[in-house]
Amino acid sequence: MTSIDDVARECGVSTATVSRALRGLPRVSEDTRARVLEAAVRLGYTPSPHAVGLASGGRTRTVAVVVPFVTRWYFSTILLGAERELRRRDHDLALYNLGGDPEARDRVLGTELLTKRVDAIVIVGIEPTATEQRRLARPGRTVVTVGLRVPHWPSVSIDDVEVAEKAMAHLVALGHRRIAYVGGLKDEGLDFTTPRLRLRGYRQALAAAGLPHDPTLEVDGGFTSDGGIESGHALLSRPDRPTAVFAASDEMAIGVLHAAKERGVRVPEDLSVIGIDDHEMSRFMGLTTLRQPVVQQGQIAARQALHLLSSEPDDEHVPEHVTVSTELIVRETTAPPSS
Amino acid sequence: MTSIDDVARECGVSTATVSRALRGLPRVSEDTRARVLEAAVRLGYTPSPHAVGLASGGRTRTVAVVVPFVTRWYFSTILLGAERELRRRDHDLALYNLGGDPEARDRVLGTELLTKRVDAIVIVGIEPTATEQRRLARPGRTVVTVGLRVPHWPSVSIDDVEVAEKAMAHLVALGHRRIAYVGGLKDEGLDFTTPRLRLRGYRQALAAAGLPHDPTLEVDGGFTSDGGIESGHALLSRPDRPTAVFAASDEMAIGVLHAAKERGVRVPEDLSVIGIDDHEMSRFMGLTTLRQPVVQQGQIAARQALHLLSSEPDDEHVPEHVTVSTELIVRETTAPPSS
Repeated sequence: MTSIDDVARECGVSTATVSRALRGLPRVSEDTRARVLEAAVRLGYTPSPHAVGLASGGRTRTVAVVVPFVTRWYFSTILLGAERELRRRDHDLALYNLGGDPEARDRVLGTELLTKRVDAIVIVGIEPTATEQRRLARPGRTVVTVGLRVPHWPSVSIDDVEVAEKAMAHLVALGHRRIAYVGGLKDEGLDFTTPRLRLRGYRQALAAAGLPHDPTLEVDGGFTSDGGIESGHALLSRPDRPTAVFAASDEMAIGVLHAAKERGVRVPEDLSVIGIDDHEMSRFMGLTTLRQPVVQQGQIAARQALHLLSSEPDDEHVPEHVTVSTELIVRETTAPPSS
Repeated sequence: MTSIDDVARECGVSTATVSRALRGLPRVSEDTRARVLEAAVRLGYTPSPHAVGLASGGRTRTVAVVVPFVTRWYFSTILLGAERELRRRDHDLALYNLGGDPEARDRVLGTELLTKRVDAIVIVGIEPTATEQRRLARPGRTVVTVGLRVPHWPSVSIDDVEVAEKAMAHLVALGHRRIAYVGGLKDEGLDFTTPRLRLRGYRQALAAAGLPHDPTLEVDGGFTSDGGIESGHALLSRPDRPTAVFAASDEMAIGVLHAAKERGVRVPEDLSVIGIDDHEMSRFMGLTTLRQPVVQQGQIAARQALHLLSSEPDDEHVPEHVTVSTELIVRETTAPPSS
């Protein structure tokens, strides 16, 4: 088997230089790096995992990121931010997508991550149960959550109650008094805290505005555009239909807009619609929404994970719980009620 | 340090059972698995990478997937399919997102993947140069491409020339004779073959229909919705504007629709627009498009990678180059020209 000494001898450089060149670290000239790569490939040299492990203090330089739905805009954008930050700091991202499947959740959170050699775990949008928390938090392993907060772990998220209150405040200020909520109410076996907190914000905003609470105006849109379409039809077919809909995600709000179009309900003349996210497609729909900074949340989570792993003095202070702020983006789907 | 023997002794089972329970393999009762997990956590046992390596024939059970843009619908949906298939077969997915950055490409394809201990690499939508191919194709490592074909590696894709010809045939059959193309022409340093092949399909379709080739009707939309907006404005501000636009992706087509709306150009009365993909948002735009099966392509790529890795007899035959078919979905953005 080819050793690092063989490659170093072939190139006339030290083994340390070979190691730095192959790991893509700085302080190696482009010319030397090219020669080392060429020789390594030609001689068939692979760094042993043992050597790599020793070089990084027994660490795998891999961070697991667990998302419930990789294709949804919010989750793929979190991945973008996390991957960028991890790569910049020479770490791999191992992707775990649960695909909305409670069995996959049991397998990944209950068993797989227990036995994987990863340095840290970033859990996005899923609240681990007490048992899962006990299993995930092995000694020497960092866990960070995104989109929710678990007491003893660092986290980054928006304030889910406040963002709902801000969306409602916009509708109330426009004069709406009969406002429906499209969220996620059913238990999907994935225990998101987000739907629960945004529902609480909706109810608190009703109370604050002195508006009655009508439970039949709270509809389950399952956080998908299909669910938004169904919810829209259900709400708009009522004789006492609402004048406004607050959807807990832009994907559901876009579904509601589609249902309104299918029924000939004019937006914003007959119906106002507001979402949360500022999904990349929302501007094309003219959707009014509460924008959240998603790439940034992914970066912060990665930074939190690496900060805790680092034994070196680090001037980059990272707070334990980070709450990023949201911003109202008024477009064309909200207006005062017509009557 | 706690050994596997300690856990086995604590639970009164064999070390093989402990190993199976911790790796999530079948033929372990739920009760036993729970007891083993509990004991492993309590005693602080971590399987050594050496032991795990031996158990799987020296393999890491990790497959690297390289995508240029993780947030774009096509790429996140490929990830969904690949992750699902890899997880089902007990493999990890290590995500490499280049983020459209040529430097990231050099680092990942030129250096990082060379030294990573992964069993296989799936490259999505990027054509490796001859040098990169030589570096990636180490002995004992499998490389699969998605969205393009490299001679000696397995691949899965649609036929990019044919899909463009099908889109054009729809517009030509409706009676359009002045059809613009919005694609990706500039070199982004990422060498996609897809834009080049779709452009070729556009030109071949013009020739087949006996239509003149006007190079000023070929516009660069960079495969983003922002690029589609710019391209739409450029094309629609011309005195001799086209009656139809064929965009090489739905994201660009959605941008063109937005530009038409901003300029008061009616779709489909004054302008027909067709895309490629059937992006999840396309139905909300009423966009006519060529649908491609994306989850399936991700699954096939994972299966190709695992098939080549497997030394066991395998009844699941996987062809080396898979071409999946596309389907015309006619919605509301295409109609005969009004003349």
